[in-house]
Amino acid sequence: MTAPGDPTRATIGELSALLRAGRLSPVELLDALTDRIRREDGRLAAFVHLSETARAAAERAHAEIAAGDWKGPLHGIPIAIKDNHTTADMPTRAGSAAPGTDYPLADAHAVARLRSAGAIPFAKTRMHEFAWGMETPPTRNPRDPSCSPGGSSGGSAAAVAAGLAPAALGSDTGGSIRIPASLCGCVGFKPSFGLIGRSGIVPHSWSLDHAGPIAASVGDAALVAGAMAGPDPADPGSLGVAAPDWSEALAGGAGGLRVGVCRTHFFEDLVPAVGDRVEAAIAALARAGARVTEFALPEIGQGLGAIFAIELASSTNYHDRRLREGAVAGFGADVRLLVEMGRLVSGADYLQAERFRRHLAERLAPVFDAVDVIVGPTMPLTAWRSGETEIRIGGRAESIVAVSWRLTYPWNLLGLPAISLPCGIDGAGLPVGLQIAGPVLGEAQVLRAAAAAERALGGPMQRVAAPA
Amino acid sequence: MTAPGDPTRATIGELSALLRAGRLSPVELLDALTDRIRREDGRLAAFVHLSETARAAAERAHAEIAAGDWKGPLHGIPIAIKDNHTTADMPTRAGSAAPGTDYPLADAHAVARLRSAGAIPFAKTRMHEFAWGMETPPTRNPRDPSCSPGGSSGGSAAAVAAGLAPAALGSDTGGSIRIPASLCGCVGFKPSFGLIGRSGIVPHSWSLDHAGPIAASVGDAALVAGAMAGPDPADPGSLGVAAPDWSEALAGGAGGLRVGVCRTHFFEDLVPAVGDRVEAAIAALARAGARVTEFALPEIGQGLGAIFAIELASSTNYHDRRLREGAVAGFGADVRLLVEMGRLVSGADYLQAERFRRHLAERLAPVFDAVDVIVGPTMPLTAWRSGETEIRIGGRAESIVAVSWRLTYPWNLLGLPAISLPCGIDGAGLPVGLQIAGPVLGEAQVLRAAAAAERALGGPMQRVAAPA
Repeated sequence: MTAPGDPTRATIGELSALLRAGRLSPVELLDALTDRIRREDGRLAAFVHLSETARAAAERAHAEIAAGDWKGPLHGIPIAIKDNHTTADMPTRAGSAAPGTDYPLADAHAVARLRSAGAIPFAKTRMHEFAWGMETPPTRNPRDPSCSPGGSSGGSAAAVAAGLAPAALGSDTGGSIRIPASLCGCVGFKPSFGLIGRSGIVPHSWSLDHAGPIAASVGDAALVAGAMAGPDPADPGSLGVAAPDWSEALAGGAGGLRVGVCRTHFFEDLVPAVGDRVEAAIAALARAGARVTEFALPEIGQGLGAIFAIELASSTNYHDRRLREGAVAGFGADVRLLVEMGRLVSGADYLQAERFRRHLAERLAPVFDAVDVIVGPTMPLTAWRSGETEIRIGGRAESIVAVSWRLTYPWNLLGLPAISLPCGIDGAGLPVGLQIAGPVLGEAQVLRAAAAAERALGGPMQRVAAPA
Repeated sequence: MTAPGDPTRATIGELSALLRAGRLSPVELLDALTDRIRREDGRLAAFVHLSETARAAAERAHAEIAAGDWKGPLHGIPIAIKDNHTTADMPTRAGSAAPGTDYPLADAHAVARLRSAGAIPFAKTRMHEFAWGMETPPTRNPRDPSCSPGGSSGGSAAAVAAGLAPAALGSDTGGSIRIPASLCGCVGFKPSFGLIGRSGIVPHSWSLDHAGPIAASVGDAALVAGAMAGPDPADPGSLGVAAPDWSEALAGGAGGLRVGVCRTHFFEDLVPAVGDRVEAAIAALARAGARVTEFALPEIGQGLGAIFAIELASSTNYHDRRLREGAVAGFGADVRLLVEMGRLVSGADYLQAERFRRHLAERLAPVFDAVDVIVGPTMPLTAWRSGETEIRIGGRAESIVAVSWRLTYPWNLLGLPAISLPCGIDGAGLPVGLQIAGPVLGEAQVLRAAAAAERALGGPMQRVAAPA
């Protein structure tokens, strides 16, 4: 157990034990985090707002826990919130300076659920504008401040990796939780489409948007996701179910687990270190008792056009009104271009994309008769230098934007639960992400595999100091 | 009971009793129908093909019934099939001369279900090209050969109204079963979206297309729809449920039935005779014991843009490939224009339409806490002269295409069960249609109300001779 003197390096599991035992107060924990943010975030740029009511909430949590009224493992735990989740006590801008984006001062469904579980939303994190990008400038990657943290939930991943938040909320339309988690060496977890309600989260693409946590360990990610999940009548995509208790799954181990490895798409055009670390992780799972089988699904690589059509059309439906009303100057050039591009997706194209999506789901369904989870890399590369736009993989130049989400978007298109956890570092010390996906509502098997992999690889990746 | 000598004027219920009792043979019945079609359809133009295997099927049915192997009330009943349903023994053209539309010689799901219930698909009926129109030229309306039968299932309605088929299949994307049923004085029934599987029916708009029967009485429509309904694994929209037995509902009567009358939209801009006949029908239901309540739902009239965007985009997604491949000459000018127009619906527009659709469903849901069915006119007008394109209602000129589906499309947008039955004639002797809709899977209450209305109005409308 981490000593109370260093609470900003502990997992939520460790913090929770200290808080419940009275060896750490929620106020001390919050103060330690906010002091470090005030000192260290100037260069990291992971945060956009600190709550002015969080300290009162921490004092209440302290009194409640002291009085024996313990609400559970998130009681008194400060959690950072991606800036596209509305919050009652902090403004929401969704990463944009565009006028007309005055979102209500009210807790998003998932934020309200965390609050009622005793957690303390204490800060808003920086994001790529309207979640429409993989970079989150000017946030830096704590593993190498010259590198991008990824996006769009870049501030959330940077904050967790630098020990400035025990966990942070993200949103994931094509990879926006898993991409920054992979690049910053955190765990990013996107449960099944509809398990976590999205009302109060600024929409990007209704049928692709997922909410979920970025955390320092698989167990922490499960803890936060479990509290976020539940019926959300105001979200048309809500499955209307609560999360089951995943603690048994987290302890289940790899013995007998059927691990599928899809050699098409997911293992093509990787930088060598990514391929090496992921193969080593799969081998470690096999040594721990997993049964690994390989399969091919050639169609899965053809989904890019489908997700791009759906994402463009949806985001344009939501954002174009403001552009057409003249709020052009507020939009970043990249996001403005994407919203304008979205006008060119026809309804017929959109329907074709939705038809392909169904076809892909039908083709994948029998795979989950034979395997419990699908394991591969989260991304084909590790963190790139901020500002870089192109990378050479296998001698071929590719746009970083296109490479970034190549392995994450299939699980948005299909709405499947997927997690990214660190599985080692490349030659430059930058983290490699291992991605584990399962069938709809197969969170238990995904978490079981992820926790087993985390243990087989020596435990959660240590967090680093924010760049000085 | 109708005498065996005049089988082409009987209801299916009457025919079935004669067939089962051996007082009429399926062969005699089929021959009587096909003889009349050969003699009378030249001018009516309701049919495009007669089956060459139907007579053998009728002989088999005769032998089976004679041997005591009675399959149920459709055994030996000839049923005509709209030309967008594929059939094993008849070609399918979906009303088009466009090349590349060589649909398979295999029974559509609904046709196969009818066959296994003992019915005999014996002919294909004319339809508006690709179900994209409300006219079905050159088919005539048996009630007045100078008038249009409506569309797109115009051949099916004309055939039934002229006594040339006991019942006929239709499809309904915005009203294509109910519109010709209303204009020709038949019963047209479109159950809930997904109750009848659509695999094997040439798609027009996946999320709006419904299948269902056109028949001479409410009971006949229920009989055929019940046999058509059932899980269809090849139709992504299939609800996967079978139809319950509706015989109790059909006999239920109007006593205590809660009838809702929506004064907004459904009673605006009607030709006077339609308003008069529909009010009289509602009064007759009230006298028979129904409790009539009025309500308003202003948004329902705003769905036209939504259904038009969805229908255009979907139909273009399906048909545009052939136009782009150069098969321009085969398309009718009106349908070609619609397919080309559909290219202009953006994905963002499409999503906006789908969002409105959901909004409308949410606004309508509480109405069905207070009423069992919603009753009003099927169409604002009666049959127009073939070739007319404009009508003056309340002093204002309106396109007949736009007027035709104004009162039917809401129930496609919402996927609700809806039936049209005759409720009298106008000053020119042309039928007026009464439309009754219910909540999703509320077929029983819709059929109960329709059967009660039919009885209160003096029984099914008599069929007429085909125009000489």
